[in-house]
Amino acid sequence: MKLAVVGGGSTYTPELIDGFARLRDTLPVEELVLIDPATERLELVGALARRIFARQDHAGLVTTTTDLDAGVAGADAVLLQLRVGGQAARLQDETWPLECGCVGQETTGAGGLAKALRTVPVVLDIAERVRRASPDAWIIDFTNPVGIVTRALLRAGHKAVGLCNVAIGLQRKFAALLDLAPADVHLDHVGLNHLTWELGVRRGGPDGEDLLPGLLAAHGEAVAADLRLPRAVLDRLGVVPSYYLRYFYSHDEVVRELGGKPSRAAEVAAMERELLALYADPALDEKPALLAKRGGAFYSEAAVDLAAALLGGGGTDVQVVNTYNNGTLPFLPDDAVVEVQARVRATGGCGPVPLPVPRLDPLFAGLVSHVTAYEDLALDAALRGGRERVFKALLAHPLVGQYDLAEGLTDRLLAHNKEHLPWA
Amino acid sequence: MKLAVVGGGSTYTPELIDGFARLRDTLPVEELVLIDPATERLELVGALARRIFARQDHAGLVTTTTDLDAGVAGADAVLLQLRVGGQAARLQDETWPLECGCVGQETTGAGGLAKALRTVPVVLDIAERVRRASPDAWIIDFTNPVGIVTRALLRAGHKAVGLCNVAIGLQRKFAALLDLAPADVHLDHVGLNHLTWELGVRRGGPDGEDLLPGLLAAHGEAVAADLRLPRAVLDRLGVVPSYYLRYFYSHDEVVRELGGKPSRAAEVAAMERELLALYADPALDEKPALLAKRGGAFYSEAAVDLAAALLGGGGTDVQVVNTYNNGTLPFLPDDAVVEVQARVRATGGCGPVPLPVPRLDPLFAGLVSHVTAYEDLALDAALRGGRERVFKALLAHPLVGQYDLAEGLTDRLLAHNKEHLPWA
Amino acid sequence: MKLAVVGGGSTYTPELIDGFARLRDTLPVEELVLIDPATERLELVGALARRIFARQDHAGLVTTTTDLDAGVAGADAVLLQLRVGGQAARLQDETWPLECGCVGQETTGAGGLAKALRTVPVVLDIAERVRRASPDAWIIDFTNPVGIVTRALLRAGHKAVGLCNVAIGLQRKFAALLDLAPADVHLDHVGLNHLTWELGVRRGGPDGEDLLPGLLAAHGEAVAADLRLPRAVLDRLGVVPSYYLRYFYSHDEVVRELGGKPSRAAEVAAMERELLALYADPALDEKPALLAKRGGAFYSEAAVDLAAALLGGGGTDVQVVNTYNNGTLPFLPDDAVVEVQARVRATGGCGPVPLPVPRLDPLFAGLVSHVTAYEDLALDAALRGGRERVFKALLAHPLVGQYDLAEGLTDRLLAHNKEHLPWA
Amino acid sequence: MKLAVVGGGSTYTPELIDGFARLRDTLPVEELVLIDPATERLELVGALARRIFARQDHAGLVTTTTDLDAGVAGADAVLLQLRVGGQAARLQDETWPLECGCVGQETTGAGGLAKALRTVPVVLDIAERVRRASPDAWIIDFTNPVGIVTRALLRAGHKAVGLCNVAIGLQRKFAALLDLAPADVHLDHVGLNHLTWELGVRRGGPDGEDLLPGLLAAHGEAVAADLRLPRAVLDRLGVVPSYYLRYFYSHDEVVRELGGKPSRAAEVAAMERELLALYADPALDEKPALLAKRGGAFYSEAAVDLAAALLGGGGTDVQVVNTYNNGTLPFLPDDAVVEVQARVRATGGCGPVPLPVPRLDPLFAGLVSHVTAYEDLALDAALRGGRERVFKALLAHPLVGQYDLAEGLTDRLLAHNKEHLPWA
Repeated sequence: MKLAVVGGGSTYTPELIDGFARLRDTLPVEELVLIDPATERLELVGALARRIFARQDHAGLVTTTTDLDAGVAGADAVLLQLRVGGQAARLQDETWPLECGCVGQETTGAGGLAKALRTVPVVLDIAERVRRASPDAWIIDFTNPVGIVTRALLRAGHKAVGLCNVAIGLQRKFAALLDLAPADVHLDHVGLNHLTWELGVRRGGPDGEDLLPGLLAAHGEAVAADLRLPRAVLDRLGVVPSYYLRYFYSHDEVVRELGGKPSRAAEVAAMERELLALYADPALDEKPALLAKRGGAFYSEAAVDLAAALLGGGGTDVQVVNTYNNGTLPFLPDDAVVEVQARVRATGGCGPVPLPVPRLDPLFAGLVSHVTAYEDLALDAALRGGRERVFKALLAHPLVGQYDLAEGLTDRLLAHNKEHLPWA
Repeated sequence: MKLAVVGGGSTYTPELIDGFARLRDTLPVEELVLIDPATERLELVGALARRIFARQDHAGLVTTTTDLDAGVAGADAVLLQLRVGGQAARLQDETWPLECGCVGQETTGAGGLAKALRTVPVVLDIAERVRRASPDAWIIDFTNPVGIVTRALLRAGHKAVGLCNVAIGLQRKFAALLDLAPADVHLDHVGLNHLTWELGVRRGGPDGEDLLPGLLAAHGEAVAADLRLPRAVLDRLGVVPSYYLRYFYSHDEVVRELGGKPSRAAEVAAMERELLALYADPALDEKPALLAKRGGAFYSEAAVDLAAALLGGGGTDVQVVNTYNNGTLPFLPDDAVVEVQARVRATGGCGPVPLPVPRLDPLFAGLVSHVTAYEDLALDAALRGGRERVFKALLAHPLVGQYDLAEGLTDRLLAHNKEHLPWA
Repeated sequence: MKLAVVGGGSTYTPELIDGFARLRDTLPVEELVLIDPATERLELVGALARRIFARQDHAGLVTTTTDLDAGVAGADAVLLQLRVGGQAARLQDETWPLECGCVGQETTGAGGLAKALRTVPVVLDIAERVRRASPDAWIIDFTNPVGIVTRALLRAGHKAVGLCNVAIGLQRKFAALLDLAPADVHLDHVGLNHLTWELGVRRGGPDGEDLLPGLLAAHGEAVAADLRLPRAVLDRLGVVPSYYLRYFYSHDEVVRELGGKPSRAAEVAAMERELLALYADPALDEKPALLAKRGGAFYSEAAVDLAAALLGGGGTDVQVVNTYNNGTLPFLPDDAVVEVQARVRATGGCGPVPLPVPRLDPLFAGLVSHVTAYEDLALDAALRGGRERVFKALLAHPLVGQYDLAEGLTDRLLAHNKEHLPWA
Repeated sequence: MKLAVVGGGSTYTPELIDGFARLRDTLPVEELVLIDPATERLELVGALARRIFARQDHAGLVTTTTDLDAGVAGADAVLLQLRVGGQAARLQDETWPLECGCVGQETTGAGGLAKALRTVPVVLDIAERVRRASPDAWIIDFTNPVGIVTRALLRAGHKAVGLCNVAIGLQRKFAALLDLAPADVHLDHVGLNHLTWELGVRRGGPDGEDLLPGLLAAHGEAVAADLRLPRAVLDRLGVVPSYYLRYFYSHDEVVRELGGKPSRAAEVAAMERELLALYADPALDEKPALLAKRGGAFYSEAAVDLAAALLGGGGTDVQVVNTYNNGTLPFLPDDAVVEVQARVRATGGCGPVPLPVPRLDPLFAGLVSHVTAYEDLALDAALRGGRERVFKALLAHPLVGQYDLAEGLTDRLLAHNKEHLPWA
């Protein structure tokens, strides 16, 4: 079994490597190729990856390359974890929307659109090269915005699944609070990537007892604090919103907060420098503690689980993924990409099949419909370019919605992303 | 043919009477009952109505009563044009949302919810009494918010159609600009009440040539000024939004404007006083010019056309109405109420049947879905009451969406509507 | 010694009575007249006052009257504690400014201007009648906005001093935190009424050691929490701002907060009803605990101290009062009214003489100058009336400053205060 | 007579040269030294300057140098017109304040502070070198923010006068509207640089008839449109505010506008590139029409007039300048720098002496006091550096005033100006 990681020089990668090492029984990786154009960083990360495998007596081969086509050749699955424009572009995404009084964030709102516009063409080009080099390989997309990127991949006919660590993070947290094994906690996780609500927390599986009311009663405060939402939101809605709902439910408060302090991207960039310095230490042979603050918790577990299920390895076959709606949420088009629990099986090679979900209350469904419409226009803008398509996508976004805001944001998005958008 | 008008003491009524007189060939009214609890005002309006009929040699009988059950008995159609709480309540609707930085308007946003909560129970009670007194009568609802009120009536099984004068007003304006007879102008009018876009302006009928591009090129400035939207909005979207879209596309600007001047309800109240003084003049036997400023232009034409079509009179049978969606907009539930062109025929008694509509661009469809979800929760709050349902409807509204805003608005809505909401 | 209390039917009065009883050695009151037009309330409060005096074996006579001229005749000092328009007007002051995105508060910003406009003519009329009935009496004004009202009184040539309980409250709190007797804590209290900063906290008197740095180090958190300001504000400015500075330093946050909950005036009105119910209990012969929540803490101590010093009783002669600037703050006109420590002596009858104050940092002086200019225009509007003067006062206020805001606030101020402003 | 221009490579310079040529009788320049570190640009501009002089038969010598000390040696006057950080820094000044909801402008508000911090140390260093090389030379500062920079120069003991073209621009405009010669229009121009009001427009001189009421009646619309303020502002205040008052009177509207379009600095940068391309044309021997759009209209007239008066040339000796207050505005410290009409005479070498000004209404005086306090702290921050001083200056600014805004702006100011602020 051969896996390739595009963007393998990321500081996240040791998290993934650690997962491959720990979970070798679930996913017996024989060869792992780290692919990245940033040679220096790639070599640092590759060497650490080898030391981690060695320390854990993992026999898998870790190689590195800057040659995408060579790297993905013969791969069974290809993980995409790239960031077009790097932290510098992210800093922009977090900053210029504030000039218009809008939240600055790299996956939600106008910043998220900028990231989508930069990312979709690059990912589609990579996917095309994967298809040529290894036609049966699964593409697992961890690159944000996962919903739009996955929709782009699926529309172009690729064997692709979108993956995010929000659901697995909540599952692990709830399991800890409930004193259960993670595998015994099933989430009724419904919505779009970064726009989800846990409608139920079930013991054992989709038909198990709903533990959510008890969980909120006993641990509502801790869960709410973690999401930075008032506890009353959880109690009154009776569900657990994703952390990203904060950008909707507390939008103006977040804008005020962000306007009252410097961008967080600077912080991440500093952390990255520090991590790379640690990785360079030849004595280091495990993922450093600092990496936990980087934000990708449980990403490796999620990736291993998903790859294993797709490739016929061990582990659970019900997982939260991003895939075609196909009637799961009846008010959305079939070809919208939703984030829900799905059954993922290697046999048949047909990819994830969503499980039925509870009816989504209009309180959530209205927002999901609205954002789906935005994603449709965002993908159109990413595929075809042009100032007017960008403007329309922004006007369609529930956090924008106003004519002059959309204008101001469009101008800024284009001004700050010129080098990444050939048509701009 | 007998018609009853609930809220017949309204200062609008002479507009309606004038229409009945002018359009007697289309709708031969034999008896017209004006029903209103406000005796004094009712008598003023009733006497003027008789003078208008007399001047125009209309043989129809005009009566007035404060007894609803007696008034609607035997009616073929009942028009609802009431305002629960009067201009005083409207003033509130326009004011307290501004305290939270939200638009204050009596049909859109939080003010519109207040009006829905006050109105739905009253209208349902009236409809129930109509059903008992005149089981076959059609109920034509002109009472705002027309979308939610019509949905309430239809769900309760009434023979009801919702009517608004936005579409007929645009039709008349476009006809004048294009130098066509109104009957030769067909609008591709799509959306929800007060949330519509003209997607096309067709010569002659649904399949006629689309005159919209030419109209915008030649008269875009005038149309935009009328809607108080930047002309660029029309040119770039390629459609004509309803005036009410201004509260979405220019929300913050409107809030600033409203905060920079006194409420318009005061102005309307003054106009009403002046109108009533005019009506009291026994020499007056036509609708006064001032009435044109009151805002109900072409309401009588729309009402006559609709009643005529429902009751088998003359006139056109394709009209813009509010009725069940039933698949017209595929992304909405069948039992949502949409505002579209429909074929209205007396035969079969089945009421309006929507014509097919062009595909609604995601730019508009996302907003329509979002507002429909809000209307669902708004109706639930109107039917069942309770602070929490009000809060949820507000949180679901695309112009609110934030937790603390929804809280602040809920508190104010309840505080300002106590006397009209028995459960509050 | 005879004292008269105008507005003696206030629910605050028992606090004052309690002070007169406890501090009889400082201020030996022989006759106390409570004057109020609200008979029922006046009798309730008067009866309770007599019971409090009786329980504490105070021989002073308590009388009540609705006749102002009779009541103040022969008085040595007259306390003004009235509220023109009552809690209903206050509710308005707290509400309509929010519609324009401005803080709604009854002494600061646009709400404070409304109160000034309502109050100044009433107070000047009372003062004139005091002058006729008892030419030598001191007028002690506790009626807000104390700065503007005192300036009006002084300009009209009255023997008047303005009094507020902010300074004494801080003195008592600091004394408790520092474990000192209140008399041993001298504040370098500088600014305008409700716009002050404690620049120093001195042991023993004006020349004592400055305990403020130590106080902030040890108790900064508690002091900041009390003022509802971030602790960092105190640490970084190195001073303790008045609670009312919150409306400046955290203006938008306060507006958001106020927009997210109902007005506090409702709460106070409820408390007043509850207090009056308690007062009606003939068994009650002390001030009830609930009164402490009403907001006038230490008002009686401050009033007793001031009256005693003015009339030659015992007690301290250095007190925080509102009086003419006369060069105390060199950048303000002499006839501005400032709130500072002053020496108050009966001899000479010349009233308070401000102590020298430390130089006020430009950080504070700029705001003080700006607000003083506003107060000048506010007083002009209160004395001469007229929409344009109201507009100019608002435009001059540092919390308004914008043309359209000033317009919108002016419209609302006038609309909500018609019955109290004969010229509006 | 020798003049030196620091920042002589500016695209503005041809405007100045043109003025020197046209007004040679007023100011007979014999030698003009253009000083600039940007060699290429300097040579372009210098060559054009020589061609302009040649075409107009001006015998003066134009030289260029990058050596400041050599260039200013022997100069009678030195004009400062530099821009530390260039258009790139200006772009920043216009942008990051918007992220906090504040106006982004290079002389007003937080952007103006950034410019002051960058500029003051550079200007003081230049002035010191001027003093050594040519101890009697006058320094004429046209570098923004002129008020703070002039205050810095005067405090350091330099022979300096601050100059701005706002007043002369209005004088020329009013003269044209009134059909008078500019010399016959005297302005009662009062305030601080970029914070002034024309209190009167007098025929002939300081004691002439006030033409302002008639001017506003006849041309109010045109004047208001030019200032981008509502006409009602002028009519109601009865004065003509500087264009820059728009950032106060319409602050939020401007922020919305700026958020709805890209920064203007980009536009200016484009214009500069275009101008330099024109300058490079060896056939060009006059100032190009495009330069008029650059914004420095009448700068050369103002500079010539001022230099002539200072050096004993011809022309008028009453001019609007920035100089010490010295009691002109009695509510400001003597060492504040005000912008008013002053008598400027060479004899005595004592520099400008302000003429008496009409009393400034509190409506304007309050704002002037507040901004003066800010300028005091801004200068302190520019001279001594440090994050805390920057924070305090921002908190003291009437357009900021809030704690968290000041924090957010401080962070951004420092982040965007690191390379220009050695202590940051």
